[in-house]
Amino acid sequence: MNEFWKDFPIIQEQLNETCELIKQQVKVRNKEIEQALIDLTFSGGKLLRPAFFFLFAQMGDSQKQDHQQLIKIAASIEILHMATLVHDDIIDDSPLRRGAETIQARYGKDIAVYTGDLLFTEFFELLAETMNGSDFLHTNASAMKRLLLGELDQMHTRYKKDITVFDYLRSVNGKTAELFSLSCLEGAHFGYASKEIQRLAARIGRNIGIAFQVYDDILDYSANSKTLKKPVLEDLSQGVYTLPLIFALQKSPETFYPYLEKEAAITAEQAMELGQLVHTFDGVNDAKDFAKKVTQKALIDIQKLPDCLGKEQLEQLTHLLLQRSF
Amino acid sequence: MNEFWKDFPIIQEQLNETCELIKQQVKVRNKEIEQALIDLTFSGGKLLRPAFFFLFAQMGDSQKQDHQQLIKIAASIEILHMATLVHDDIIDDSPLRRGAETIQARYGKDIAVYTGDLLFTEFFELLAETMNGSDFLHTNASAMKRLLLGELDQMHTRYKKDITVFDYLRSVNGKTAELFSLSCLEGAHFGYASKEIQRLAARIGRNIGIAFQVYDDILDYSANSKTLKKPVLEDLSQGVYTLPLIFALQKSPETFYPYLEKEAAITAEQAMELGQLVHTFDGVNDAKDFAKKVTQKALIDIQKLPDCLGKEQLEQLTHLLLQRSF
Repeated sequence: MNEFWKDFPIIQEQLNETCELIKQQVKVRNKEIEQALIDLTFSGGKLLRPAFFFLFAQMGDSQKQDHQQLIKIAASIEILHMATLVHDDIIDDSPLRRGAETIQARYGKDIAVYTGDLLFTEFFELLAETMNGSDFLHTNASAMKRLLLGELDQMHTRYKKDITVFDYLRSVNGKTAELFSLSCLEGAHFGYASKEIQRLAARIGRNIGIAFQVYDDILDYSANSKTLKKPVLEDLSQGVYTLPLIFALQKSPETFYPYLEKEAAITAEQAMELGQLVHTFDGVNDAKDFAKKVTQKALIDIQKLPDCLGKEQLEQLTHLLLQRSF
Repeated sequence: MNEFWKDFPIIQEQLNETCELIKQQVKVRNKEIEQALIDLTFSGGKLLRPAFFFLFAQMGDSQKQDHQQLIKIAASIEILHMATLVHDDIIDDSPLRRGAETIQARYGKDIAVYTGDLLFTEFFELLAETMNGSDFLHTNASAMKRLLLGELDQMHTRYKKDITVFDYLRSVNGKTAELFSLSCLEGAHFGYASKEIQRLAARIGRNIGIAFQVYDDILDYSANSKTLKKPVLEDLSQGVYTLPLIFALQKSPETFYPYLEKEAAITAEQAMELGQLVHTFDGVNDAKDFAKKVTQKALIDIQKLPDCLGKEQLEQLTHLLLQRSF
């Protein structure tokens, strides 16, 4: 984490405090699980969501802010994210996360189920401490629900040969963009920024979240067009079709159907061919164009924010994250 | 459900309303999952926890009560319980629950993980609707945490040959008694009963919960001493040692160690022998005595409650549930 934020010293310090709080929060009797959760906290995740939270908090009124409350809310966001990671790793049977063994790989799926549940509880506990009586309790409950519905939507459209951009975006909106949007909105709200900034924050967060996920899905198809990364092979065999494939598929269903019909039985070689075809039919380029447009929307909204260090850094961060060259 | 509550018509009606609300609450785009959740709601679970909630609500001030709030809180309790059932079934690899196929068996563990998560969210959403601003938000967060820690404790003591009664009770206190205690306490609190009744409610609920779990564990060893029920065989091979075994084990560790050392490799035949030995060393009788004492404590506390229909029914229900003959 620290390396990534070296040019953002204020944010870096706030994120360090957030990690320390998470470490305090995940204390359980089972020391192995506690250690696994601490490892996950400090394992080099960028803590993007808390970072966006703090950037938007800077646009508020620092006189009114409660520093401890902000740290706790930032921790609640990261803990909710961690809970979904732990459960996602069960679903995906992932051996590694951020270079370290996943909880499901190390301790088994049983413990991973309860560990994720425990993190949901920590999330809930932090909300009870920081926003009891606020409308944001509902906002959080709704966000968590949309996040899970996004995951369920993704499962629901597995192996769906006529999957649409709409299906994809609906799922991404829930599973990724919702939490980015919440992070930005909560930063603005609990930082005492104006209603107008809060409105922009929610929208900027949503667009950044969508672009972030699209670029992430593009990365699986990139490197060079002759190779496919492991995640895309897994995604394909699990029936998860992402934007580059969807764009290509729409141009020539008859080319892709024979591959998709194999479902889980698709071989590595066939997946390679399919990856190649996604490039041939411009799926990767189309997805890049799409992501650029969404990023542009976010950047236009960022321009509308009041001038301050937070705004500058937000712009910088958006470029850093989303204007990657491929 | 209906059959069990036929002598408690008021409770029966309230439980029906609670189930209808849960049905409304679990609406999701994936109709299969929605149906699975509705099936789970109406599949003949006794809804004991909401029932205890309503019984204690009767001891309050009906003039002050908000009927819709009570139904929602009762639903939140049952939904939290359902969430743990869905996740427990993943851990235990259970094919059936209340005679119907479990979500994990029917839709796979992946969907079961998210379905349980979704129920945790529904729980949280109902709390945001009914007790935002109340201290009971913390109470619920803590209860949910203790519940999960109880599950993790049970995992932590798997195959532990020197497991103690304390280990067992600590786990039961969390995984079972906590939610019974919360149900009774919340009924009294949101029913506007006095602080004294609330204090008794929490304690009565806890003791009923403990006795309920101990009897449940005894049932696995009973029927007759020559047979063992399937659950106990599974519990043994999964390293879950319950009170009858723990009591017997303490009297003669050298008798039991050779069996327990086999861990997951214990055969059905060896488990049968072990079940027999639990009887020989009076483990079942000792556990029954223990459960009776705990039930007695609850009944003494119930006597301290003000006279009303709720009190009578609570007594009746406690006898019905916990004074079963073996």
